[in-house]
Amino acid sequence: MSDTRVPSGIAGLDSMISGGFSRGSANLVEGAPGTGKTTLAMQFIYNGITKYEEPGLIITFEEFPLQYYHDALQFGWDFKDLESKGMLKVVFSDPQTTLTEFDKIDGQFVSLVEEMGIKRVAVDSMTHFESMLIDQVELRDLERKFINSLKREDVTSILLRENDSLLGQVGEVTSKIPFIVDSYILLRYVEVDSSIDKALLVLKMRGSDHQKDIRRFKIGGHGVEVEAKFSGREGIMSGITRHSPQDAFVDAFGKK
Amino acid sequence: MSDTRVPSGIAGLDSMISGGFSRGSANLVEGAPGTGKTTLAMQFIYNGITKYEEPGLIITFEEFPLQYYHDALQFGWDFKDLESKGMLKVVFSDPQTTLTEFDKIDGQFVSLVEEMGIKRVAVDSMTHFESMLIDQVELRDLERKFINSLKREDVTSILLRENDSLLGQVGEVTSKIPFIVDSYILLRYVEVDSSIDKALLVLKMRGSDHQKDIRRFKIGGHGVEVEAKFSGREGIMSGITRHSPQDAFVDAFGKK
Amino acid sequence: MSDTRVPSGIAGLDSMISGGFSRGSANLVEGAPGTGKTTLAMQFIYNGITKYEEPGLIITFEEFPLQYYHDALQFGWDFKDLESKGMLKVVFSDPQTTLTEFDKIDGQFVSLVEEMGIKRVAVDSMTHFESMLIDQVELRDLERKFINSLKREDVTSILLRENDSLLGQVGEVTSKIPFIVDSYILLRYVEVDSSIDKALLVLKMRGSDHQKDIRRFKIGGHGVEVEAKFSGREGIMSGITRHSPQDAFVDAFGKK
Amino acid sequence: MSDTRVPSGIAGLDSMISGGFSRGSANLVEGAPGTGKTTLAMQFIYNGITKYEEPGLIITFEEFPLQYYHDALQFGWDFKDLESKGMLKVVFSDPQTTLTEFDKIDGQFVSLVEEMGIKRVAVDSMTHFESMLIDQVELRDLERKFINSLKREDVTSILLRENDSLLGQVGEVTSKIPFIVDSYILLRYVEVDSSIDKALLVLKMRGSDHQKDIRRFKIGGHGVEVEAKFSGREGIMSGITRHSPQDAFVDAFGKK
Amino acid sequence: MSDTRVPSGIAGLDSMISGGFSRGSANLVEGAPGTGKTTLAMQFIYNGITKYEEPGLIITFEEFPLQYYHDALQFGWDFKDLESKGMLKVVFSDPQTTLTEFDKIDGQFVSLVEEMGIKRVAVDSMTHFESMLIDQVELRDLERKFINSLKREDVTSILLRENDSLLGQVGEVTSKIPFIVDSYILLRYVEVDSSIDKALLVLKMRGSDHQKDIRRFKIGGHGVEVEAKFSGREGIMSGITRHSPQDAFVDAFGKK
Amino acid sequence: MSDTRVPSGIAGLDSMISGGFSRGSANLVEGAPGTGKTTLAMQFIYNGITKYEEPGLIITFEEFPLQYYHDALQFGWDFKDLESKGMLKVVFSDPQTTLTEFDKIDGQFVSLVEEMGIKRVAVDSMTHFESMLIDQVELRDLERKFINSLKREDVTSILLRENDSLLGQVGEVTSKIPFIVDSYILLRYVEVDSSIDKALLVLKMRGSDHQKDIRRFKIGGHGVEVEAKFSGREGIMSGITRHSPQDAFVDAFGKK
Repeated sequence: MSDTRVPSGIAGLDSMISGGFSRGSANLVEGAPGTGKTTLAMQFIYNGITKYEEPGLIITFEEFPLQYYHDALQFGWDFKDLESKGMLKVVFSDPQTTLTEFDKIDGQFVSLVEEMGIKRVAVDSMTHFESMLIDQVELRDLERKFINSLKREDVTSILLRENDSLLGQVGEVTSKIPFIVDSYILLRYVEVDSSIDKALLVLKMRGSDHQKDIRRFKIGGHGVEVEAKFSGREGIMSGITRHSPQDAFVDAFGKK
Repeated sequence: MSDTRVPSGIAGLDSMISGGFSRGSANLVEGAPGTGKTTLAMQFIYNGITKYEEPGLIITFEEFPLQYYHDALQFGWDFKDLESKGMLKVVFSDPQTTLTEFDKIDGQFVSLVEEMGIKRVAVDSMTHFESMLIDQVELRDLERKFINSLKREDVTSILLRENDSLLGQVGEVTSKIPFIVDSYILLRYVEVDSSIDKALLVLKMRGSDHQKDIRRFKIGGHGVEVEAKFSGREGIMSGITRHSPQDAFVDAFGKK
Repeated sequence: MSDTRVPSGIAGLDSMISGGFSRGSANLVEGAPGTGKTTLAMQFIYNGITKYEEPGLIITFEEFPLQYYHDALQFGWDFKDLESKGMLKVVFSDPQTTLTEFDKIDGQFVSLVEEMGIKRVAVDSMTHFESMLIDQVELRDLERKFINSLKREDVTSILLRENDSLLGQVGEVTSKIPFIVDSYILLRYVEVDSSIDKALLVLKMRGSDHQKDIRRFKIGGHGVEVEAKFSGREGIMSGITRHSPQDAFVDAFGKK
Repeated sequence: MSDTRVPSGIAGLDSMISGGFSRGSANLVEGAPGTGKTTLAMQFIYNGITKYEEPGLIITFEEFPLQYYHDALQFGWDFKDLESKGMLKVVFSDPQTTLTEFDKIDGQFVSLVEEMGIKRVAVDSMTHFESMLIDQVELRDLERKFINSLKREDVTSILLRENDSLLGQVGEVTSKIPFIVDSYILLRYVEVDSSIDKALLVLKMRGSDHQKDIRRFKIGGHGVEVEAKFSGREGIMSGITRHSPQDAFVDAFGKK
Repeated sequence: MSDTRVPSGIAGLDSMISGGFSRGSANLVEGAPGTGKTTLAMQFIYNGITKYEEPGLIITFEEFPLQYYHDALQFGWDFKDLESKGMLKVVFSDPQTTLTEFDKIDGQFVSLVEEMGIKRVAVDSMTHFESMLIDQVELRDLERKFINSLKREDVTSILLRENDSLLGQVGEVTSKIPFIVDSYILLRYVEVDSSIDKALLVLKMRGSDHQKDIRRFKIGGHGVEVEAKFSGREGIMSGITRHSPQDAFVDAFGKK
Repeated sequence: MSDTRVPSGIAGLDSMISGGFSRGSANLVEGAPGTGKTTLAMQFIYNGITKYEEPGLIITFEEFPLQYYHDALQFGWDFKDLESKGMLKVVFSDPQTTLTEFDKIDGQFVSLVEEMGIKRVAVDSMTHFESMLIDQVELRDLERKFINSLKREDVTSILLRENDSLLGQVGEVTSKIPFIVDSYILLRYVEVDSSIDKALLVLKMRGSDHQKDIRRFKIGGHGVEVEAKFSGREGIMSGITRHSPQDAFVDAFGKK
């Protein structure tokens, strides 16, 4: 891990993280179903290729590559074309194979990374590692081993993880990965005025400063767009915001 | 899954989901007892047949077809008649058989879908898959396999699932299906002024934009009718709303 | 189940449920100890006999018939007399026997129902089925089987169930019966101004519209009396109400 | 159980329960440590003897009779003297023996009740039955059997039960006894203005009307004294009250 | 246990408990780490020796006597000196030995108490009894047996117990000891205006009246000092106080 | 443990703890991922060497020393250089070895401490001890044994521990270490106005007074900087603060 920044190219996000992720870092992105984890990961890979000339690898454990091509195309990202140009590889695999082939010096993933000059990796998702073992201590070892093998290849990675919490208060971490990775980003649903907004939050960023704002974001026609803070609202991380009292007074009586 | 829209024909719902579900998509609808899951599914099938000429299939694991004929007739939907015209099939089955006969190329359900030209499927309910196995990893595999076999037939499906939460705060997902499906709709009870209203919410919609409003809905004489947002209310997803403070001030003192 | 209404004859309740329960329907009534479940069930049976000439059957798994005679008499309902006239039967049984004798064509309960022309049945309580088996899937099957056998006899039934929640927020259903029955009524304790009121709520009513109000009710000299909504109160289903803010302002400053 | 009232002789309590408990009824009193359960039970027995000439029996499973003599004397109740006059018996026993000797026609407790003409019984406490068995269904049977044997002797009983909740919200019943007994009284700690008050609440009273107020009570020099409701307070059953908003306005600005 | 009072000599505490603990009573003091349990117990023993000429015994299951000497000296209490004068004994032991040697007539602890004329005992802490057995019923028996053996020696004891709750709402008792002992004192952390205060609360006091105030206390240069109530605050036992609304109005607008 | 203070050299912290930790004390620092535990520990060691000439030892169970060199350098702390000068040692080990080699008189860690004249130790993290054993009683013994062996060497130590709670209310301690150590410091995330702040809190400090403030802190260019209290905020330890009502009034209407 070095101090060079690896920009995500995602509007609003890079400015929160000092211009980008650290080169060679492992970055955890967690969210409930539909919060946009996969979109964010695809965008990180796509921008890496098209804006920064960094070849990318997407490893998927559940969806077929076809689904990725289709979903990416919704945002105008032609993954098939990038694959044909040798800049992208979308691989359907399983956690055990992925672990093994990243761990061995001549493993398939190691070879792939080296041959293609892969600089960015997205893993969708770390949740599937949890189905391999029951023992929590062994699981942590295994996750750390995998993350270390990514770092050995000096790739900058986004590791997705499913978060079961739809709208409840942010409570406990449900995995030990947040303690191991270099940064930890949470995507959350938030109720605001009888609507469901999305919030993005950088909780951890090792070795550099970062913005602590809880930001609104949306999935627009060009992917993830990170917007401003939630103003006049309290309790955002409870999932169900309330008007801050000042805001309520001002709304009712006008500003002093 | 393609980008053509498959309208539900349900007042207010289609406008929330860009005109309809994606053709070939699997769509999860969850709710507590009495929230109207089955009505919504029957309506999707009925409208498919009568408004869009798309033959439909209802697979039920607990109620007999007779109950469906009866309940549908309350809304003026003559399911027996549609069955006699070859446009509808209501089948009482079990999860294991359903899985097998959708998975094999010459399976009974596959044949049925192809012979009748079925375009829409409703499954009532996915909850019964959970009684087949205890291992959560195996269950997820099985659910994904079933959903994939539906997609292979290019039918647009509504998958119902029972949600045990009556009025508590929306907390964690209680199944992994929301992570697998293309869209996820929640039906909820909500306390408003000493009454119980119903709320509909589209939490996830893959590959297209959708409205994030939490909408009131009711079961009227013609089925589900999706209405406006809850105005002047906070905490809707907590199950027990409260007046937003502005609303309370305005109510008491009049508008500024 | 048909669309004819079977009135409970309980003041205020029938108007909430379009005039009564559906003929042949199974109706679940849940409540904490002392909320008045048994009174409501006895009243449904008593009114059936005396107002609508429908013979009734009460099946009890814990209390002896003597207790019922005694309790009913408090409200002026002479159950012994009705039994002597062949219009009522109070039977002490157990879940297994009840299940078996309702399931066989020539079962004792089936015979009883047919000989006496029973039209209404009360079961006190479904909770005791839960002591028969541990497996939740088997239990659901068994409960559904029992409910189906009641429907086969075309009796309209009230099924009582104990709810352990005294004053906490209405949270999750604690049984799968609410998903199986035709209607689901909750009786709840509610704290209001340093007193404990009772609230009645119809959460589900299959095949017909119903009022969604959360209503105050009391056990008076003539049994259950359903009264008006809780006005000026929020959080009723949390068990511990609070003044709605408007109400509080008005109380303190007078109405605008 | 008959409709004659058996007064507790406790100031404020009898007026809440139509003059007293039903003759022959079993009455559950639950509370956290230090709420005054034992005092209330001793007072019921003492008043029975000295005010209503009804001999009494106290069965204890943990404390020795000496402790009772001592504690009673604090309130000026001379238990030793009453024992010597044949009006009172304090017995140290265990649940199994108690159950057996109340169940047999010539059991020791049955004989004792009949010989002394016992009319009131206090059991301290039902909690110890829970250490006999693990199976919840068997436990319920056993508790019901015990309660029935008390009723067969036509004694009016107060059954104490320990409640582990110190100040949390009244949530679920932690035993099935509330469903079996004729009345259910809760003693609770309540935080009010940086002090801990005590609250008494009659949740259930079979076969007669009762007051639903949540009342303040204290343990004074003469035992339990039930006082007025908590005025100007909300959330009493949450354990931690808050000022009702009106009360707060009035306090700050004076009454309109 | 007699009615003579045994003063703790702790400023503010004795006035809450009618001048002191009952002679011969067992008194439970519970608190989170750092709340000052051990300081309170040492002070009770130290004051007993120096102010009331009652020799004292401290039994410790985890810390060595040296730590006690050191910690006591911080408050100016010279425990080594008191030991040399035969007025104090600090013993490092284990629960099993303690139990046995207090239970036998010629047990080591019994002999020690009788030889030294011990009047006060502190046990640090009862929590370690919980590591001896898993069965809750056996544990309760054992704890009661131990408490009874202390009472047989007519010593007045303070029994410490660790409470895991740092700042959450006071909920359930986590042991059965509160039901057995003569008094029950809680030490709690409380958040007030972005600081952590300490609160002391006497929940139970058998056989005598006591103050029910929730009092602020601190650990000063001379040990525990119990101060006044928390004024203008609500929700103290929730761990996180809030301004009472009146207080807030007054703060903002001045007093009426 | 003596009464000499061992300053952390961290801005704002030493003034909270009477100038520093007690010489020879064991000090627990707990926090969620990303709160800055490791930075605080490194800073304590770095300042010890460079400001107070106390050689330091860092024991790590998961990260390699290289990661520490890298992370320290971000703050301008040249750990490699300090190692070369014999003032610092960063050791990668495991809990079992660490325990053994600190426990034996001629153990490797004991030798290292004595040879280098180590005065300060940081352990990253105690959490890994929890993966050695399942039995809680044995674990506590082991942790105490380890802490005692540190004290025997008279080193002042900072023991890190992972806390899984991200933003929920501070509830129960999740380990028994807080009861064993000499001081207990919590690092917490706190939501304030749609941002995530960090809070530092000294909950326990044996043998000396300390400030009870809940303080804001940040990780700046020179490490941890402890700032002022959170003013105008309530509920800080709930993780999600709210404006105190006065503050809200003042904000809306101006100060009186």
